[in-house]
Amino acid sequence: MTYELYYWDGLQGRGEFVRLALEEAGADYVDVARGERGTAKMMDYMHGKHGYDMPFAPPFLKDGDLIVSHVANILNYLGPKLDLVPKDEKSRLFAHGLQLTITDFLAEVHDTHHPISTADYYEDQRPEAKARSKAFLKHRVPKFIGYFDRIIAANPTKSGYALGDTLTYVDLSLFQLAKGLAYAFPRAMKNFDSDYPHVAKLRDAVAKRPNIEAYLKSKRRLAFNESGIFRHYPDLDQDPA
Amino acid sequence: MTYELYYWDGLQGRGEFVRLALEEAGADYVDVARGERGTAKMMDYMHGKHGYDMPFAPPFLKDGDLIVSHVANILNYLGPKLDLVPKDEKSRLFAHGLQLTITDFLAEVHDTHHPISTADYYEDQRPEAKARSKAFLKHRVPKFIGYFDRIIAANPTKSGYALGDTLTYVDLSLFQLAKGLAYAFPRAMKNFDSDYPHVAKLRDAVAKRPNIEAYLKSKRRLAFNESGIFRHYPDLDQDPA
Repeated sequence: MTYELYYWDGLQGRGEFVRLALEEAGADYVDVARGERGTAKMMDYMHGKHGYDMPFAPPFLKDGDLIVSHVANILNYLGPKLDLVPKDEKSRLFAHGLQLTITDFLAEVHDTHHPISTADYYEDQRPEAKARSKAFLKHRVPKFIGYFDRIIAANPTKSGYALGDTLTYVDLSLFQLAKGLAYAFPRAMKNFDSDYPHVAKLRDAVAKRPNIEAYLKSKRRLAFNESGIFRHYPDLDQDPA
Repeated sequence: MTYELYYWDGLQGRGEFVRLALEEAGADYVDVARGERGTAKMMDYMHGKHGYDMPFAPPFLKDGDLIVSHVANILNYLGPKLDLVPKDEKSRLFAHGLQLTITDFLAEVHDTHHPISTADYYEDQRPEAKARSKAFLKHRVPKFIGYFDRIIAANPTKSGYALGDTLTYVDLSLFQLAKGLAYAFPRAMKNFDSDYPHVAKLRDAVAKRPNIEAYLKSKRRLAFNESGIFRHYPDLDQDPA
């Protein structure tokens, strides 16, 4: 069965965390909104034209008659099917908790450029975005990325992965976080590799996996841009805190 | 086995969404941080003193040797055990997606009083909090609560619940959202019951359930206060949008 991924066309966004899992696993999937009338097809689900279980927002995944919405829910669902999480309950619960921490962090990344209102442009909330970015870079990046660095270091298998001795969807998401932060805040992330050595090493290991390497070179991997979550606005960047 | 809930003492906060599920089910649980040396016991887990699978933040639940962190993960785990979600996969995935939408909304509620930095006091970001609250009340409350109202209305069983024909943990969380919004923004929520009739009716139905009614009258239910997510700052309130 072909998985159907529904997410806004033209940006990596939250959909990218699902794409990375599907690509790493070599799964058969279609990125529906990038096809003909794709966005309209996506909106039909959100407007309840295919049933009462309408998603609030993309991304969502369709697998047969199942609709799964939210990145963490999708990855928790796909993980065992794609061999991207150990199958025991303890590991699955831990991985899902880590992914939900990534979810929280992403909301904060988004708010660096939209601290007041998502209904207004970044240009209309620039001073507030600067203040929020400053606090984000000083307090939140060290808190979150430092946590993930400690998690990898504490992994009793010493595999270099977030949990267990094989790659999980959490590792793929951490790769995307590291790449996104470097895109959005190149100055502030200058010391990323020495500050967070375990996350940096994991990022490089993920980039070299054959399926990921091929994906990153493909047209399916869109470049980061200023429609996504990670946006490069030089005004919001600064020297390392 | 007694469930151990770990969450900051002195506030409802995110822990309340888990408490409501445990209370409704009449589950055997202990609110660890409210006991002797409770906060220290909680911090030990977050500092990795009990193993590598350290939670990023409370709430987390301990069930035997399992640690489950994040509200939505905990409720997804407890749901089938406490009969607070239908057991079929489609329903569980839908309920978890709804709960994750609630998670996203709660982060936005928090940011109404802390739009710039969680490291600073509300009083240090008051104009920005006013601007964010205005946008939140105008755009985000209708978007999110309107969605949940439509979900209840679209439920093919016409049960008045978010999904299926019995109460789920999602309904308990929607009760808490409705109560919290009314506490934080009493003026702006003046027309809540006519704007969101299905959510309002659900809120009242939940309040009348015997176990919830007893819980709300007990000392275990702390009052809303200005340490929680829903805070009443009159400056941030306004007439209905």
